[in-house]
Amino acid sequence: MDFLQNNLIYAVPALGLIGIIVMLFKSAWISKQDAGDANMQELAGYIADGAMAFLKAEWRVLSIFAVFTAALLAYSGTITEINGVPMHSSWIISIAFIIGAVFSATAGYIGMKAATKANVRTTQAARTSLKQALKVSFTGGTVMGLGVAGLAVLGLGGLFIVFLQVFHVTSANSIEMRTAIEVLTGFSLGAESIALFARVGGGIYTKAADVGADLVGKVEAGIPEDDVRNPATIADNVGDNVGDVAGMGADLFGSYVATILATMVLGQEIKVEDKFGGMSPILLPMVICGLGILFSIVGTWFVTIKDEKSNVQTALNLGNWSSILITAISSFFIVKWMLPENLSLRGYEFSSINVFYAIIVGLVVGTIMSIVTEYFTAMGKGPVNSIIQQSSTGHATNIIAGLSVGMKSTVIPILVLAGGIMASYHFAGLYGVAIAAAGMMATTAMQLAIDAFGPIADNAGGIAEMSQLPPEVRERTDNLDAVGNTTAATGKGFAIASAALTSLALFAAFVGIAGITAIDIYKAPVLAGLFVGGMIPFIFSALCIQAVGKAAMDMVQEVRRQFREIPGIMEYKAKPEYDKCVAISTKASIREMMMPGAIALITPIIIGFTFGPEVLGGLLAGVTVTGVLMGIFQSNAGGAWDNAKKSFEQGVMINGEMFYKKSEPHKASVTGDTVGDPFKDTSGPSMNILIKLMSIVSLVIAPYIAVKAVEGNYKQEVRKEIRIEQKTDSLGNIITDTLINKTDTLAR
Amino acid sequence: MDFLQNNLIYAVPALGLIGIIVMLFKSAWISKQDAGDANMQELAGYIADGAMAFLKAEWRVLSIFAVFTAALLAYSGTITEINGVPMHSSWIISIAFIIGAVFSATAGYIGMKAATKANVRTTQAARTSLKQALKVSFTGGTVMGLGVAGLAVLGLGGLFIVFLQVFHVTSANSIEMRTAIEVLTGFSLGAESIALFARVGGGIYTKAADVGADLVGKVEAGIPEDDVRNPATIADNVGDNVGDVAGMGADLFGSYVATILATMVLGQEIKVEDKFGGMSPILLPMVICGLGILFSIVGTWFVTIKDEKSNVQTALNLGNWSSILITAISSFFIVKWMLPENLSLRGYEFSSINVFYAIIVGLVVGTIMSIVTEYFTAMGKGPVNSIIQQSSTGHATNIIAGLSVGMKSTVIPILVLAGGIMASYHFAGLYGVAIAAAGMMATTAMQLAIDAFGPIADNAGGIAEMSQLPPEVRERTDNLDAVGNTTAATGKGFAIASAALTSLALFAAFVGIAGITAIDIYKAPVLAGLFVGGMIPFIFSALCIQAVGKAAMDMVQEVRRQFREIPGIMEYKAKPEYDKCVAISTKASIREMMMPGAIALITPIIIGFTFGPEVLGGLLAGVTVTGVLMGIFQSNAGGAWDNAKKSFEQGVMINGEMFYKKSEPHKASVTGDTVGDPFKDTSGPSMNILIKLMSIVSLVIAPYIAVKAVEGNYKQEVRKEIRIEQKTDSLGNIITDTLINKTDTLAR
Repeated sequence: MDFLQNNLIYAVPALGLIGIIVMLFKSAWISKQDAGDANMQELAGYIADGAMAFLKAEWRVLSIFAVFTAALLAYSGTITEINGVPMHSSWIISIAFIIGAVFSATAGYIGMKAATKANVRTTQAARTSLKQALKVSFTGGTVMGLGVAGLAVLGLGGLFIVFLQVFHVTSANSIEMRTAIEVLTGFSLGAESIALFARVGGGIYTKAADVGADLVGKVEAGIPEDDVRNPATIADNVGDNVGDVAGMGADLFGSYVATILATMVLGQEIKVEDKFGGMSPILLPMVICGLGILFSIVGTWFVTIKDEKSNVQTALNLGNWSSILITAISSFFIVKWMLPENLSLRGYEFSSINVFYAIIVGLVVGTIMSIVTEYFTAMGKGPVNSIIQQSSTGHATNIIAGLSVGMKSTVIPILVLAGGIMASYHFAGLYGVAIAAAGMMATTAMQLAIDAFGPIADNAGGIAEMSQLPPEVRERTDNLDAVGNTTAATGKGFAIASAALTSLALFAAFVGIAGITAIDIYKAPVLAGLFVGGMIPFIFSALCIQAVGKAAMDMVQEVRRQFREIPGIMEYKAKPEYDKCVAISTKASIREMMMPGAIALITPIIIGFTFGPEVLGGLLAGVTVTGVLMGIFQSNAGGAWDNAKKSFEQGVMINGEMFYKKSEPHKASVTGDTVGDPFKDTSGPSMNILIKLMSIVSLVIAPYIAVKAVEGNYKQEVRKEIRIEQKTDSLGNIITDTLINKTDTLAR
Repeated sequence: MDFLQNNLIYAVPALGLIGIIVMLFKSAWISKQDAGDANMQELAGYIADGAMAFLKAEWRVLSIFAVFTAALLAYSGTITEINGVPMHSSWIISIAFIIGAVFSATAGYIGMKAATKANVRTTQAARTSLKQALKVSFTGGTVMGLGVAGLAVLGLGGLFIVFLQVFHVTSANSIEMRTAIEVLTGFSLGAESIALFARVGGGIYTKAADVGADLVGKVEAGIPEDDVRNPATIADNVGDNVGDVAGMGADLFGSYVATILATMVLGQEIKVEDKFGGMSPILLPMVICGLGILFSIVGTWFVTIKDEKSNVQTALNLGNWSSILITAISSFFIVKWMLPENLSLRGYEFSSINVFYAIIVGLVVGTIMSIVTEYFTAMGKGPVNSIIQQSSTGHATNIIAGLSVGMKSTVIPILVLAGGIMASYHFAGLYGVAIAAAGMMATTAMQLAIDAFGPIADNAGGIAEMSQLPPEVRERTDNLDAVGNTTAATGKGFAIASAALTSLALFAAFVGIAGITAIDIYKAPVLAGLFVGGMIPFIFSALCIQAVGKAAMDMVQEVRRQFREIPGIMEYKAKPEYDKCVAISTKASIREMMMPGAIALITPIIIGFTFGPEVLGGLLAGVTVTGVLMGIFQSNAGGAWDNAKKSFEQGVMINGEMFYKKSEPHKASVTGDTVGDPFKDTSGPSMNILIKLMSIVSLVIAPYIAVKAVEGNYKQEVRKEIRIEQKTDSLGNIITDTLINKTDTLAR
């Protein structure tokens, strides 16, 4: 274990730890802020309790699932051979799985705790100034960002060190190293399983509450949004935290971990001489992402404004761009310092500078995807305007316009993604594709801080409304909320891009471990796999959408019951039973996510073991392609419908006439928004989880379905050949006559 | 040319000719029927004139496009070598292209002429009996079916004979035979180009007129559908003929031709000894499809009813099933008679009986796809009921339900398709996949007869309404129309299935001609191609949907203008200017189809020439997978919304309460129906054309982008090898020692 001495590996968990320490300071700072009057604190308490109630219910189901899966993984780890071929996994993979799940859940817990603390404190801060309100809400987001990134890096880096010891790894390219990294995939599987519950379950929760609250409250009872009399309003606010904070956090935690891991898998195949015992291609993604935490912290310093008139969006952009820029620049030096001049992966040769270029490709892809998402969903831009115009002829044309906008919004992201795949591959082969994803994910802490800021500001506005605070407070929280809507859109773009690149990286890693060298869709079974894979996002989306509908119906009935059975709610004389609504959303979301979750988890196992790795590869490609498309389509259509509706609040011009809220076109736009709700917050973002989870499950089972292909790698045959080769033309005349004396060492 | 003597090839065009002769008799019979009173004839005249106006406008644009494309093809045919490699095409491909376009256009013309004659005669016949009305309307459909199938088989078979002479083909596996078949792909390209104009242009036409007529007529002016006072009503009825008759006909003409051709391309690679000069694998698809015409004629004999109470659907089913059954049984004998016992394609060996099994697979796939489509769109079944139930909570939930139904409806068709691919490949390799498609298409004449019957009955009802005929007439035409709606749904299922299988067959043929042996999506550029290909159906759909919206707006403005500027329309005192509305729909549809058409035609050319055949293969796979998915999703969602709305006409039960027309849930269902209109009649069916057209264009350009790969096929090298092969173990001890003396004739 000599080669572990004086090594960089110890720096990785240290970087994660720094992130966590800073996070703890920020978290303590938030707790110290003024939480407002008793009424505000009571409302905030309901939200915090509701959020925790969901987390607990989620964990209860999760723990059953985790125990079962861990047992299965532990059993699989004890298999020492299949058909006479040695297996190199270990039961320890189940430990990695549980730690991954616990770390991800902890990150979600920390983020949600911070968010539910920061919301009411943001409301209170908004009584003083916009500057202070931004500071509190963004710090709340930062806690989430640093918690996710810090725990991910700490967990991955720490486990890696432990596994190097446990498996007695003595060189970077040994079978023991491979085992160590394969066992580490358990961590990623655990993290992504939490993401399934948090993102899909959370997505169903938030929209069931939202749609349910709106249908009875706004439409039937005629009371405004976030009105304290609506029994579902707390559930609605809880939903923002559950779906947008914990869900998004778990989603990115999963992408972050999976990306690093996939790059490590591919890096392990690269043989190099370096100052890190040949481990530089394995360590590089961890180091970049670890340093990315520091750069994200630096970026947060720039997120501050001067006074009431300052532009909040500009401040956030400045922070974001600084952290990306520093990451880009320092990547150059890290790559130059760590990697040797020339590298080669599966016969593809590339130089170290090209690895840097691939990282830049990743940063560019992520940025463009975010910008495009913003364009297609932003108020005042062409796409949203087209929906507004077509709202004038009714509900149907509003829907048609939104669907059309969503479909059109796939073009540039897909071209960028395709270009990104080709460019990063061109630069550094499959390692380039994976490291591009890692580069993009390096500033995850910053991205999440900006993302989580949105729902905190949204909640703060809700609390201001419910507590009937003065208008200037609501004005400030509205300002933050409007920016939060934009960052939510760009965040979604980033999340989809990250899921897509992560899946590609996992796909590349899968092929290596599965022992195949090609996925040939010209073979009929592989093509069939591609078709079936392509279909899965459709059924997954349908199930998610349907789940929201069903859960919202449950909510509607409960709210109607409370209005009927509890006298005095409307006159503020009696309190609604908020907890009943929270319980309904919680129960429904967990019940309804079972079926789609099972599809994502079980399909690759069935296909992999029945038809082998190549057909499974076809399936994964199909899932990824349509998953990314359906994700972009649904998220952007939903976002555009949402902002088309919001545009009516300030009034919009259609054919020379002004229209406001409650006009006929506005009613049509509300229809679009309601259709868009499950699109943008449930089925759309669920696509990220679907494609990543199926890829990770495939990666985990890869060694077991790869028996035949791997076989050859462990047998060796030396063949000596003495050959006289004559070339003749078609008439039989000898053209050349060569004596060939060759010794081959064959792989099989 | 000895091998052409006493050959089966002459039977093929003869079979096509028989179909055409029967068609002419049926057409003459229709003309002889009573066309009703002067008023009815006047209205029918407007529809016929409008339909012809569209065809003429379409042909005008088409001829420019055709001349340009033919010139390009002719030029490409003159290229004798690329980079020193001989090319084997010919300028004659441009002739094949033009003949293909003319034949397809003629088939559309005949079908539309027959349909516009049969509609008013069906109305008149409905004054007597249901039996007679069915006879007239179904005979009208039969003309279309036989016209399409007859002309396709006559064209393909006739040109094949001519090309065998022109290129002096002397054996089945010669390079000359390959040239003859490659040149024949021009016929298919011509046919599919017409389909682009007819299906996409026609789809835009019919829905622009429909939506436009409804928005002003039903919603604003409050007059019923098909009211003679509505200026857009004639355009609406023309649309039924343009979209559902000519569009569907051209679509299936294209599938029919392309399927046969793809099977011929693959058949040419199979070397056999048989009584047809080795041509049996090439001739088999033509013979089966040719005989399918006869069996379809036999099937039509069963489509008749006894009296008013007979079930029309049962009669149609009986006809359909008889023709399928006869085709299945006779395929067994044809295969046994024509093919030798053992065959082999690209190393895949199979017996002749397996070819028969593959044909059965095709018939089964087509049938299941039709049944599933019917289930998901039929009144009274679960999916449509779920939409009805969710209409009770408003427009948005109706839309969500419909989208969810559409997405869910993809599952079984995709599994069936995937199973079909694997089974047919298992039986007879790639030839099996192609012949499965051909088997499915064999009864195209019957399928189309049933399909075209629908819009004729629909039109007949429209004329009855406009002429204010007695209620029992309208009742009879309504009966036929209801059956027509079901056949429209199953017809769409069949069309999608045929397009999917056709594309797969073309895909298989493409790979062979492009000289590649694999499409490896593990290569980054191929994967990028897959992503871009997957995106194209999204942008194509978006453009189609948007086109309907724009064209409908034009229509709305024209109708409003006429109501405003022509006094007395509402009082039946003045006639609306029907022709103006027809002109608007015509112009708009042709203008709006340019962009999507260009995408379908040009993308494969750009990708193929820039990145080569393998990336193009990835692109095609992506287009096919998402194209089929989006086609099924959109068509079925639209069909389900349509029938959910129609269900309100008889009243529906929601939560124990009955709802009828004009109720709130009914209004929500109208929204869904309007959204579904472009889905089911424009963007959905356009997917068929998109995937086929891109595959055919790729097949046509395949020889030109395949330069490097094809190279080897035309050079030959004889290599003599004397080899002493020693196998040693890892210590160097000799295990075996073999003298190998081998003479190889290598392909490169």
